[in-house]
Amino acid sequence: LGAVGPVASIVSVGDELLVGQTVDTNSAWLSERLTSLGIPVERRWTVGDSPERIADALAAALDSSQVVVFSGGLGTTPDDRTSDAVRGALGVNSGAGESLENPLGMAPGLAFEANDSVIVLLPGVPRELRAIFTAQVAPRLVSRFGDSRRQSFEHRIHTTGIPEPVLAEQIEEVLGDEMGDGDLAFYPDLRGVDVVLRVRGGTAEAARHLFDAFERRVSGVVGPFRYESPGGDLVEAVAGTLGELGDTLAVAESCTGGLLGKRLTDNGGASRFFRGGVIAYDDSVKRDLLGVSASVLQTEGAVSRAVAEQMARGVALRIGADAGIGITGVAGPGGGTEDKPIGTVWYAVYLNDCVRSEHRTFLGDREAIRERAVQAALALLYHWIMDDQRVMDGQKVAVGPER
Amino acid sequence: LGAVGPVASIVSVGDELLVGQTVDTNSAWLSERLTSLGIPVERRWTVGDSPERIADALAAALDSSQVVVFSGGLGTTPDDRTSDAVRGALGVNSGAGESLENPLGMAPGLAFEANDSVIVLLPGVPRELRAIFTAQVAPRLVSRFGDSRRQSFEHRIHTTGIPEPVLAEQIEEVLGDEMGDGDLAFYPDLRGVDVVLRVRGGTAEAARHLFDAFERRVSGVVGPFRYESPGGDLVEAVAGTLGELGDTLAVAESCTGGLLGKRLTDNGGASRFFRGGVIAYDDSVKRDLLGVSASVLQTEGAVSRAVAEQMARGVALRIGADAGIGITGVAGPGGGTEDKPIGTVWYAVYLNDCVRSEHRTFLGDREAIRERAVQAALALLYHWIMDDQRVMDGQKVAVGPER
Repeated sequence: LGAVGPVASIVSVGDELLVGQTVDTNSAWLSERLTSLGIPVERRWTVGDSPERIADALAAALDSSQVVVFSGGLGTTPDDRTSDAVRGALGVNSGAGESLENPLGMAPGLAFEANDSVIVLLPGVPRELRAIFTAQVAPRLVSRFGDSRRQSFEHRIHTTGIPEPVLAEQIEEVLGDEMGDGDLAFYPDLRGVDVVLRVRGGTAEAARHLFDAFERRVSGVVGPFRYESPGGDLVEAVAGTLGELGDTLAVAESCTGGLLGKRLTDNGGASRFFRGGVIAYDDSVKRDLLGVSASVLQTEGAVSRAVAEQMARGVALRIGADAGIGITGVAGPGGGTEDKPIGTVWYAVYLNDCVRSEHRTFLGDREAIRERAVQAALALLYHWIMDDQRVMDGQKVAVGPER
Repeated sequence: LGAVGPVASIVSVGDELLVGQTVDTNSAWLSERLTSLGIPVERRWTVGDSPERIADALAAALDSSQVVVFSGGLGTTPDDRTSDAVRGALGVNSGAGESLENPLGMAPGLAFEANDSVIVLLPGVPRELRAIFTAQVAPRLVSRFGDSRRQSFEHRIHTTGIPEPVLAEQIEEVLGDEMGDGDLAFYPDLRGVDVVLRVRGGTAEAARHLFDAFERRVSGVVGPFRYESPGGDLVEAVAGTLGELGDTLAVAESCTGGLLGKRLTDNGGASRFFRGGVIAYDDSVKRDLLGVSASVLQTEGAVSRAVAEQMARGVALRIGADAGIGITGVAGPGGGTEDKPIGTVWYAVYLNDCVRSEHRTFLGDREAIRERAVQAALALLYHWIMDDQRVMDGQKVAVGPER
């Protein structure tokens, strides 16, 4: 695409970063803010509290960047050396630079104009850095670079239940070479894959046309795996669908041990739809608290369709919820058999007096198997409700054409 | 200290880092591991999925580093370009490099030897990166650089329940200037604070003397907050103490919503001591499944000592476990009152027909409050058992001097 408009570099300073004492969250935050201001970040450096290293990084950054943001090394202790090192590298005197007021801490930020570039120094404490950037740096960059900044547009599709290589291959197959103007990227994690189409430059309308064309091509491929959630979390999608119906949910977990309940309550307001659950780790808990049949446990085994279904139904009835989820599986690292290898998970959803269940053999270690099992169970509930709504919407249209 | 022995650089690769979509936790983890292997990290770079930027970073790193670790950009999709870019920069052919088996994912790591340096490419998925580094990269670096590494010894104390600034001040007060040869560092996270004393250079015996002196000085300060766990996880310590007694545990969670159960089952083998639990998010579940008194719920409120204690006792009895934990609190962001502000948590432990309970007002957001509540409840159980054992050990010595 070539270098249209200003680009940025970020330099994180601090010995505590290089010994791994501190995870650098500032540079991700700054990257996101700069990108959305239309000033893409092209490189980041992390250096210790060393004037030479700081000066080296500044020189390299100024080679190609019109914005250089330093974070850290601005305090009052002797190992805080960023401001003197930057002044030395720029060849300005010890009082030079414009002070940026810090409303939350002792160390103010600093701004320099040099070589057609803006150099900003911010303290390393995340909330102080964010406050100064938001109130003083962002407006300065907008007014300094104006319309030369690169507008960027993105279209994001959340999926779960399909591996990244399979999804990528299928999408690339239906697209052919058609999306030449956009950058296609896949962001996989244990919970699923986000597909993102990004366009830099051009108008919002042109981007929307591209996104519409993209949607038409890929909707068949992503459809069965897709969910809608502004924040990207399937729980948010499930909460939304349950909330629309006024339905409540209870969960029964064996191998996931509480992870599903934790996921459902990670955000506030879960009490609107979530009533609670039973962690039925031991089989006696499955029997005594969920009413799973002792003979089924014996004949089918704890990891079976029948047990998952009885868990889902049992917990909904015991707790008095409209819907129930049951999960039972072999999360490893021990406990696998030839019939039920590690990763075997049965999960079931109870809703409207019906039960649906699926089983999968998930890959990965214990953490991956548990995350994937929870996500698959949530997806089963989500798609069930969404499919029902689509059918109902269709029926309404058929029966009542006055709508 | 000057450049004695090998030093390392880390290059993180990925457009998702530069747009701020992903916080780079890999480079902190790698920095900590390399530092403790005696190979200090002198610089880190973050670049996008661009062969030129990757090659630039490699060239700059090889100027001064004998170890260069890349993370990210090793998958199977077209935007994963690290291996080809590194091969191109090194001038080797497209099959070159030694494959490093990935036990947890699709993309193997790669290792190259060039210009007296070791270059290692690891996938960006944190658990895969950690598995490959631990099993294959660390042993290779140890054997490759042997005694030229800056030998480093460390002594680590795990604590929970005391804030880092308080702990640091108290430890620095009892130490005075006595630990001149060692570097003292504090590693805080939501679950507690690790205190680490590191010595670089010298013999193991000299380090042990220093660590012994350190222990004598700080044991009074850290004692009430300390736990022993080879992996650093308080759950491991709790599992060990319960395991020694042959005792089992059940949990009842309100605001933590399953997080405690998840923590207890994060590692395999939890069925040795953990039987299950009840996620009593809605008050009706506290009544119906745990036997919490409806009148106590009404008069004291759900977030109260009495409810936490009845939850702990109720879940132990219903599930048939020797010990029970109950947690109830206001995790936010809504639900706070003047009496019970956000962060107020009551937690209780039932054991040997007794109940102990505590309450705290935890700081931070919802995630922090929930993590801290779980950790505090586990600590209450752990210290109770440990104190009992100390008393019992003392009695045994007093009664049976033949031991």
